[in-house]
Amino acid sequence: MESSELGAWMADEAVLDRIRRAVEADGGELSQVVADIGPATLAEILPRLSDAQVGTLLLSMSEDDIRDVLGLLDPAEAAAIVRSLDRHEAADVLEAMRPDDATDVIEEMPRVEAERILVQMEPAEAAEIRELMAYPPDSAASLMTPAFVAIAPDLTTGEALSALGQLAGEAETIYYVYVIDADERLLGVLSLRELVLSRRDEPVTAAMIPNPVKVLDTADQETAARLLIDNRLLALPVVDAGDHLLGIITQDDIAEVLEEEATEDIERLGGSQPLDVPYRMAGVSLLVRRRVVWLLILFVAEAYTGTVLRAFGDEIGRVVALSYFIPLLIGTGGNVGSQVTTTLVRAMAVNEVRLRDVGWVLVKEMSVGVILGLIMAFVAFGRAQLLSVGWKVGVVVSVAILLITIWSATVASVLPLVLRKLGIDPAVVSAPFISTLVDGTGLVIYFMTARFILQLG
Amino acid sequence: MESSELGAWMADEAVLDRIRRAVEADGGELSQVVADIGPATLAEILPRLSDAQVGTLLLSMSEDDIRDVLGLLDPAEAAAIVRSLDRHEAADVLEAMRPDDATDVIEEMPRVEAERILVQMEPAEAAEIRELMAYPPDSAASLMTPAFVAIAPDLTTGEALSALGQLAGEAETIYYVYVIDADERLLGVLSLRELVLSRRDEPVTAAMIPNPVKVLDTADQETAARLLIDNRLLALPVVDAGDHLLGIITQDDIAEVLEEEATEDIERLGGSQPLDVPYRMAGVSLLVRRRVVWLLILFVAEAYTGTVLRAFGDEIGRVVALSYFIPLLIGTGGNVGSQVTTTLVRAMAVNEVRLRDVGWVLVKEMSVGVILGLIMAFVAFGRAQLLSVGWKVGVVVSVAILLITIWSATVASVLPLVLRKLGIDPAVVSAPFISTLVDGTGLVIYFMTARFILQLG
Repeated sequence: MESSELGAWMADEAVLDRIRRAVEADGGELSQVVADIGPATLAEILPRLSDAQVGTLLLSMSEDDIRDVLGLLDPAEAAAIVRSLDRHEAADVLEAMRPDDATDVIEEMPRVEAERILVQMEPAEAAEIRELMAYPPDSAASLMTPAFVAIAPDLTTGEALSALGQLAGEAETIYYVYVIDADERLLGVLSLRELVLSRRDEPVTAAMIPNPVKVLDTADQETAARLLIDNRLLALPVVDAGDHLLGIITQDDIAEVLEEEATEDIERLGGSQPLDVPYRMAGVSLLVRRRVVWLLILFVAEAYTGTVLRAFGDEIGRVVALSYFIPLLIGTGGNVGSQVTTTLVRAMAVNEVRLRDVGWVLVKEMSVGVILGLIMAFVAFGRAQLLSVGWKVGVVVSVAILLITIWSATVASVLPLVLRKLGIDPAVVSAPFISTLVDGTGLVIYFMTARFILQLG
Repeated sequence: MESSELGAWMADEAVLDRIRRAVEADGGELSQVVADIGPATLAEILPRLSDAQVGTLLLSMSEDDIRDVLGLLDPAEAAAIVRSLDRHEAADVLEAMRPDDATDVIEEMPRVEAERILVQMEPAEAAEIRELMAYPPDSAASLMTPAFVAIAPDLTTGEALSALGQLAGEAETIYYVYVIDADERLLGVLSLRELVLSRRDEPVTAAMIPNPVKVLDTADQETAARLLIDNRLLALPVVDAGDHLLGIITQDDIAEVLEEEATEDIERLGGSQPLDVPYRMAGVSLLVRRRVVWLLILFVAEAYTGTVLRAFGDEIGRVVALSYFIPLLIGTGGNVGSQVTTTLVRAMAVNEVRLRDVGWVLVKEMSVGVILGLIMAFVAFGRAQLLSVGWKVGVVVSVAILLITIWSATVASVLPLVLRKLGIDPAVVSAPFISTLVDGTGLVIYFMTARFILQLG
């Protein structure tokens, strides 16, 4: 990514200053500033203003602007802003937002505070939010909006098009019209594109696509994201077990889900629990809590290396030079494992590799491991000579690095697939995790090789 | 992600069998099977059929189905399929695809072969592809399609709507209509939503949004992706330096860009160069080439630890117990560094942290480092006692782990920002890279602490 290019589109100090000055002046200028700057830049800047400034700014904005700007913020950030308002203002702001976005924000607040704001809202809008809150936060239903356009199956395409004209103001997307029966069961879908292109007197049941792609309300949000992307849809209908249409998920929600999931995977691969909030909002105490668990688990696993080394203390005492290569050997083993595991975990996340692929994955990775091992063995022998430890230790180091590389590649390629099989997210096999796992075993391989070649037994 | 849920939507052996049987029979059944299965599942399955089966299948599919199915494949996979056809069939298939998708596929082929297919295509369609090929593969322009709807500024909204009806068949998206002047300069944009809702006699210049969000053809593709997402658009116009409208980028292309960029970042963070092709298509030789470079760089960097250990060989000879903690100490240092760096690199990738943030990032990460260091020091002392190495070595290990944790957190938080400043992608600071970097320095800290506390000097 080019920071310079992105920078040109980003909020900078000048824009921030202009907003601050306009807020202080509090004249009619403010709405002009808002219009000039646009929602994306405003969303960038909002978290950097004081509570009072945010209050003044939000009150000067139209409902549409509030919806756009707060919808673009991370829910945790939007919640912080909403909480800084008094409860009447907060209720107004949440009403202006889309129900799915407002629900995400409400869920970031303490229960009591959320309740105080909800009772101030219009009953119908509060009810929509309460309904969405009933779904688990990572479910497909948590992404959906109830603001869709649905029509009865006995209309013509011309009637559907004019119904659309009347309903469009309320709907989140009018690019699809859903056909439902009297019990609200999903029968089919018509795209606005097809409607515009159609003869006007066709029955909608003839023009619609029957049994459209849909997702269950209880499905994982990533399942919904993949369905929408893989079928290149603009919106995906959400149904319950009885096939009743509950709402739709739109493209813009999906980009957020994908980004979130990639961030979580990356944080896990780095050896920490996902933060679940943007980094700039994560305090010291949250960062410590998210990181300390894995640090301790890894410490305990790594502590095993002490036991191994003590068991070989005799060998180290007799050939101190053996100790010089400890970090190099276990480091290389860890690096090989980390390369394999990150590639595989990602390939599994995007559904390129599945359980049944374990055979060819293992063959491929072990072949790569053998070749890389031979290259590293050659280089390691050279390095040993540079340290003047004698050719025998050089041979030990070379053979050990070959074996460790192959071992590490094997463990790293099998482990993520085994975890998936056990129902555990393979992303827990972080780079630090795999390094730790092969450290102890790598040392055993090293000192057994040394014993054998140097006849230390 | 739930593999079981996704699995339900995925191609399975039964579907594959059904296709194989239908292909063998080669009767009218095949087009019915294609209709039943849908493009997303077909795209899943296509790479698993033989060349001959793919050929038969593609010839039985409609142009629309070919466009959808091949558009969903990774370009490298689609290229392999197109190359298995004869050049006339290949030309037909590429003509059926969207110009931007077809260009991605052509770019995965050897130049000579691509040329042989291009000359078989309709001149107009070949020319569109050649034009797109002129842009760098990662530029915004490489994502765009020339199939958009543009109108003159002197029309009314009613006239625009009927123009849309005539042009819609050719266009990739009709959800936006772009208003351009006689020199094709971009004046504004109208959404289909607004057109449908508008009175029919309004001039389009009154109804349009002037100066819409747009991206330069030479901008990075990730810049385009962020603009589209941050503004929640369905399509983004691409202009040249003179503001002439060249094409549009649609939402479905963006999801692919985001996934690709996340995959590249994850592969880099794992300590390897990005593969650029799907994992299942990456052969042993490609995997070796992508991984060996970093393995060797890390090996050379890590080799420094041998020099450090040799320098302290005397201390190790006198107190062999010191060597037991080498992997534990450098492992913990590496884990802390990896946690910090992956979180920060991701935060920078999604534009949450920028250069100017170096101050508060450093303060936050050092505070976290001190707290984590104290916890680890406490645990490490306990571990040392379990190995019965005496309380003095225990104190050395505790103090060293505290200092190493703080040091590692500091280096890992400053380095990505410094690299960005130097114009280097911060994702090169992989977990293995930061581990290697703090290994050698960690050992120096450890043995200096030992010298000081154990009075070994």
